[in-house]
Amino acid sequence: MTTTTSPLRIALIGTGFMGRMHTQAWRTAPRFFDLPLAPEPALLVGRRPDATAESAARWGWNEHSVDWREAISRDDIDAVDICTPGDTHAEIALAALAAGKHVLCEKPLANTVAQAQEMTDAASRASGIAMCGFSYRRTPALALARELIADGRVGEIRHVRAQYLQDWLSDPDSPHTWRLDRDRAGSGALGDIGAHSIDTAQWLTGQDIAAVSATVRTFVTSRPRRSAVEGLGGVAADTSDRLPVSVDDAAAFTARFAGGALGVFEATRMATGRRNANRIEINGDRGSIAFDFERMNELEVYDAAADAAQGFRRVQVTEARHPYAGAWWPAGHGLGYEHLFTHQAVDFVRAVAGEIPPSPSFADALQVQRVLAAVEQSAAHDSIFTPVAAAAADPEGISS
Amino acid sequence: MTTTTSPLRIALIGTGFMGRMHTQAWRTAPRFFDLPLAPEPALLVGRRPDATAESAARWGWNEHSVDWREAISRDDIDAVDICTPGDTHAEIALAALAAGKHVLCEKPLANTVAQAQEMTDAASRASGIAMCGFSYRRTPALALARELIADGRVGEIRHVRAQYLQDWLSDPDSPHTWRLDRDRAGSGALGDIGAHSIDTAQWLTGQDIAAVSATVRTFVTSRPRRSAVEGLGGVAADTSDRLPVSVDDAAAFTARFAGGALGVFEATRMATGRRNANRIEINGDRGSIAFDFERMNELEVYDAAADAAQGFRRVQVTEARHPYAGAWWPAGHGLGYEHLFTHQAVDFVRAVAGEIPPSPSFADALQVQRVLAAVEQSAAHDSIFTPVAAAAADPEGISS
Amino acid sequence: MTTTTSPLRIALIGTGFMGRMHTQAWRTAPRFFDLPLAPEPALLVGRRPDATAESAARWGWNEHSVDWREAISRDDIDAVDICTPGDTHAEIALAALAAGKHVLCEKPLANTVAQAQEMTDAASRASGIAMCGFSYRRTPALALARELIADGRVGEIRHVRAQYLQDWLSDPDSPHTWRLDRDRAGSGALGDIGAHSIDTAQWLTGQDIAAVSATVRTFVTSRPRRSAVEGLGGVAADTSDRLPVSVDDAAAFTARFAGGALGVFEATRMATGRRNANRIEINGDRGSIAFDFERMNELEVYDAAADAAQGFRRVQVTEARHPYAGAWWPAGHGLGYEHLFTHQAVDFVRAVAGEIPPSPSFADALQVQRVLAAVEQSAAHDSIFTPVAAAAADPEGISS
Amino acid sequence: MTTTTSPLRIALIGTGFMGRMHTQAWRTAPRFFDLPLAPEPALLVGRRPDATAESAARWGWNEHSVDWREAISRDDIDAVDICTPGDTHAEIALAALAAGKHVLCEKPLANTVAQAQEMTDAASRASGIAMCGFSYRRTPALALARELIADGRVGEIRHVRAQYLQDWLSDPDSPHTWRLDRDRAGSGALGDIGAHSIDTAQWLTGQDIAAVSATVRTFVTSRPRRSAVEGLGGVAADTSDRLPVSVDDAAAFTARFAGGALGVFEATRMATGRRNANRIEINGDRGSIAFDFERMNELEVYDAAADAAQGFRRVQVTEARHPYAGAWWPAGHGLGYEHLFTHQAVDFVRAVAGEIPPSPSFADALQVQRVLAAVEQSAAHDSIFTPVAAAAADPEGISS
Repeated sequence: MTTTTSPLRIALIGTGFMGRMHTQAWRTAPRFFDLPLAPEPALLVGRRPDATAESAARWGWNEHSVDWREAISRDDIDAVDICTPGDTHAEIALAALAAGKHVLCEKPLANTVAQAQEMTDAASRASGIAMCGFSYRRTPALALARELIADGRVGEIRHVRAQYLQDWLSDPDSPHTWRLDRDRAGSGALGDIGAHSIDTAQWLTGQDIAAVSATVRTFVTSRPRRSAVEGLGGVAADTSDRLPVSVDDAAAFTARFAGGALGVFEATRMATGRRNANRIEINGDRGSIAFDFERMNELEVYDAAADAAQGFRRVQVTEARHPYAGAWWPAGHGLGYEHLFTHQAVDFVRAVAGEIPPSPSFADALQVQRVLAAVEQSAAHDSIFTPVAAAAADPEGISS
Repeated sequence: MTTTTSPLRIALIGTGFMGRMHTQAWRTAPRFFDLPLAPEPALLVGRRPDATAESAARWGWNEHSVDWREAISRDDIDAVDICTPGDTHAEIALAALAAGKHVLCEKPLANTVAQAQEMTDAASRASGIAMCGFSYRRTPALALARELIADGRVGEIRHVRAQYLQDWLSDPDSPHTWRLDRDRAGSGALGDIGAHSIDTAQWLTGQDIAAVSATVRTFVTSRPRRSAVEGLGGVAADTSDRLPVSVDDAAAFTARFAGGALGVFEATRMATGRRNANRIEINGDRGSIAFDFERMNELEVYDAAADAAQGFRRVQVTEARHPYAGAWWPAGHGLGYEHLFTHQAVDFVRAVAGEIPPSPSFADALQVQRVLAAVEQSAAHDSIFTPVAAAAADPEGISS
Repeated sequence: MTTTTSPLRIALIGTGFMGRMHTQAWRTAPRFFDLPLAPEPALLVGRRPDATAESAARWGWNEHSVDWREAISRDDIDAVDICTPGDTHAEIALAALAAGKHVLCEKPLANTVAQAQEMTDAASRASGIAMCGFSYRRTPALALARELIADGRVGEIRHVRAQYLQDWLSDPDSPHTWRLDRDRAGSGALGDIGAHSIDTAQWLTGQDIAAVSATVRTFVTSRPRRSAVEGLGGVAADTSDRLPVSVDDAAAFTARFAGGALGVFEATRMATGRRNANRIEINGDRGSIAFDFERMNELEVYDAAADAAQGFRRVQVTEARHPYAGAWWPAGHGLGYEHLFTHQAVDFVRAVAGEIPPSPSFADALQVQRVLAAVEQSAAHDSIFTPVAAAAADPEGISS
Repeated sequence: MTTTTSPLRIALIGTGFMGRMHTQAWRTAPRFFDLPLAPEPALLVGRRPDATAESAARWGWNEHSVDWREAISRDDIDAVDICTPGDTHAEIALAALAAGKHVLCEKPLANTVAQAQEMTDAASRASGIAMCGFSYRRTPALALARELIADGRVGEIRHVRAQYLQDWLSDPDSPHTWRLDRDRAGSGALGDIGAHSIDTAQWLTGQDIAAVSATVRTFVTSRPRRSAVEGLGGVAADTSDRLPVSVDDAAAFTARFAGGALGVFEATRMATGRRNANRIEINGDRGSIAFDFERMNELEVYDAAADAAQGFRRVQVTEARHPYAGAWWPAGHGLGYEHLFTHQAVDFVRAVAGEIPPSPSFADALQVQRVLAAVEQSAAHDSIFTPVAAAAADPEGISS
């Protein structure tokens, strides 16, 4: 970051959990990575004036506003970083792209395929780059997995099994949030965390999902109003005043990949004891990889080549030769969740500078959106289920 | 085993892998457990005279035969243990039950629901007991899991995820076996190992599977003839002389349990690097259990009760207070696969003596057979899949 | 086991935990392994007539006696298997060797170096073979570790760290046993379990331990009399009637190996939560191996050769190509503690037939005994400890 | 961080790995934690003007200098953060304390006990606070462990086993660094990483180490000059131009704690395959805790209270109720190595404000230094070792 590095002036829209995470990323990236442009925290946009001012001061943003259109209209903003709920993504991103801004948009790209399509079309015409925030692509272990797969070490892929298991809704009296409101969030576990699994699976394998057979479930249909509650994971004092839950608690589907692999996916926020088990395993004819975000610095790698000592290796993906890891600490000194966002900021800046293509592109994110839509459509058709009682009645049995 | 213990004279039909395992069980059970009857290895039945004679001598069976009907017709046989391929189960078991013998039949109970139904009907009328060999019920860790669930420590069950992952067919040139022939084996991974997952899931939860949505896959459609191959897992010298594979390599399905739980099942013999990963996890509102047969002496148990140190416990199910474990070695000195069969022999003898009901009963095994049939019927209907491209074309997107 | 196989007529002395284990081994070995001689359970020797008769009947021994000298004097006994407490080993083994019997003696070989030396001298002159029961050498995973080390995959060995952690004495009111009486047991955790670590370490590395610096500790100096207690691990009802503990609860020592490796050893029966964690890790300049008996079917193997995916591999040592494993079940269907003894029986029979040398020989076991003696002598000298307060008083500090 | 928060103006001395880490901590702490003072990155001190200027610009320090005395003499500096090699700590810290500055000094506190004593004496007289950088105290999992121990959940402590295993010196041709020079580094693995184990053990147990019996080892006595090498972990192109290694590669010792616990410690940089395995396990009569920094977000906790499902729990120490964790992300979204330093910065600021005592104090760090000195003194006396051959010659054997 010499004095000759041009700035990349950023407007961040959204002051929640994700806004804070992105702020840390923008500030940290240039200190640990050599970047072609110098990201500058120019403008923070929130909804409430006082809270936004306080956030801007605390997080170190130069200016703040409660009008996201200011980020679009000002000439001294180069890039717009969208960290708002999904129902607002399309409007902001379309305006930003039309104004020639570079855009980083949190996932899921939109709440409908139609919106995602429109955003992707706009991105293809835009002068700025467009990238979607599937941040798990920036986990060093998963980036290494992708390299190994691309190098042929897994061979022809047959199985993809992806689970994203959380448990923060396991308690039926944990409070309501906007994430449980279909109008705001689009869907529940499916879009919030299942979308990550879908993107990761397609990105790692290089194969699109072609078809799905799905089911969704809402186990707890109402939740206490949040008012009496403090902090994520807190429990409401008055659990009788409840709001309806209009999204899924869990989704499960089998999938056919374009290249022939068989996929099994499950996303839930009710897997008691699993805090953030974003897991994926891929089996090919030459090897396998397995990952669990609860141990994010590790990748398990299996090589089918003959050897008396075959077995899954626990690779600590913290070495200088591993993706992203060289910029940080010595081997074995692990990274945390926040570093995914630093890596995302790094890659965004490099994409703006033309060094690498934006990944995931809006087109990639549209493909995720299509899969989400197919899952919901499939799940709406109860006819995909075969009753066991009916099978019992069939005189031909399994030979039919 | 005092001199006053009455004998239970057993005829074993089948001299393969399972026959050997059952033999070891019959011989070991009375040495480590106090049994109400003394199992006696009376008659071994095989197909080829010489090999059967040799097996009888080596394994310690009093007599041998190549005619299974001898086991039925002789008055000095009390119980018939059926370890033959699935297509022969019904005929033998029906004859044995009609002759008043006690019957232990390997899984799956039959190759069709109709046969399984007929066997179950016969069992309900028979004077002898009838039990099916889903041996994993005798894993101490799973038996403990069932006790914990029955005691309410998991609470209301929401999720069941079961995977049975093997890799012995991962190499496309591993040789053909009767297990790949639909006429003999009924189905592939589904019936061979998926059946275990189905039985375990229903037994642990106390809930039947009510409906399924399934897909199956055969990745390698022909295999080298076994002739040039020695030993399980060997590779054929001449891989061009191939026989067709008429069963599935893998099966995956979602399931609805009668009590409301959402199930996700996968069975495959192509999960490179997974030797015998018979896994199940169950999540309820009060806790969870998780198991992997590759670490068969361990059960993971999660308790949702508030505590600063919540987490899955790795329980070594080797203590005197744990199911079956008290008969063996001190804590921490684990058991192996064969001990499941010893426990099964123990429970069979106790069921014959009326101390406990046979488990699984033929009715339990019939229910498994129904689920297998429903899976195959569902998988035959490609219409359960929703193409992603179609979803993309839908202007309404996921809000439809 | 054809009719032409000569018998090996065995007398087993001792009817406790180990006697039962050896019985199962003698009976199982010829059913799963092709042996050059047919082990025959000829004579069981115990202390009390009734109990010995009952054990002989239950376990399947042809004859029984309460006089171990009968095993020596009878011509129709070929081998003597000694499973008594350590203070009786020397007398029995010397008599048996003098009488031309083959001898398998449980570990530790004796309670003193002098006895062990005498036994070793006798073995060198005897016509029969002599082998000591360090059964962990028969763990397939450790046997594989030895092969890998012998093949150079670990390279020059620098570190050996061995822990044997149990917790069955963790409760200060768990009852007294003969294992806590120095006259019977020789020593406590040191000789009971630490001896295994010593033998395993020397056997795996091919290096003797040359010198030790040791400390031992008895945390609980008296224990309730066992009379009111039922079952191993039970707790006495009356905890005020106590017997003194005259052996160590724990021992720890550093060691220099003859070949230059640095050893760190710890043995304890007070490691709360560790049931039978017999662990060893060996680091060399080319790789490492790590093992924990609580997961006895696994070996962790690290290869230092350059690769983007370096890491410890979890090898399931259950494949046909692995030591002993080929005689049993398909890959992934693990073995248990008892199978070590079956393997030991197999190797003993093969050693009797001259196919392989006895391992461990009495000379190997004598070397273990020497290390145990050196540990106790070192631990008796408090002068090996440097007080921290004294170091603080030294003006030169660590540069001195 | 409102405008009324007073600043804490910091001078950082040292621009290496640790300097960078501390910078990130000072910048991140006030964004995620509510601090009583606002740390301000005022002055960066390095050795070379250009490099220091570049670091200051990149890392965001207001000013820079090559004279550390400037940090002492300026009135507008409140705190001095010492990140230089150990041989310089005393001079800088003494000057800073004399000038009334608050001091944070990297570990080990000094290279000799005498220096550490002088620094501790100075700290006791100083107006500023003094704290030493044993950063692992700030691992949430270890902080939770300390709380659990303090709450009595481990009970009376009997065993402490601590290993700190790295492998970056495993290759004999990995290059020389100042860390291998006794004059600069004081000692090798012992002071670099063993010091962490000592501090952690004393802090967790609340017990000082009273005496030690130790051995150290240097396996590779010379290393290639670093000149041809790039990056940590790189390998020299010319390995014949070598510099001597004057520190230990590994150290091992047994220890007596003041409260009676038995300690076993090992520190090495030659444990091939172990990148940063900073491990500690503590066993008491009521429970145990176990930790491995390679999985820094996890703590294993064992509770000896009777339950059918006893076992070590894998606690993900990422919940709002866990130490430090509430300031960050939702449960299961782990932290990395750098966050230890952020937590250290937070606690330093709070200690300056008088909210909590500095931890570790210089007195705590002096106690670590004393143990290090005792280890080196003990290791210098070869007489602590008992030759095994001598034990063999003793006719009394282990009964002596």
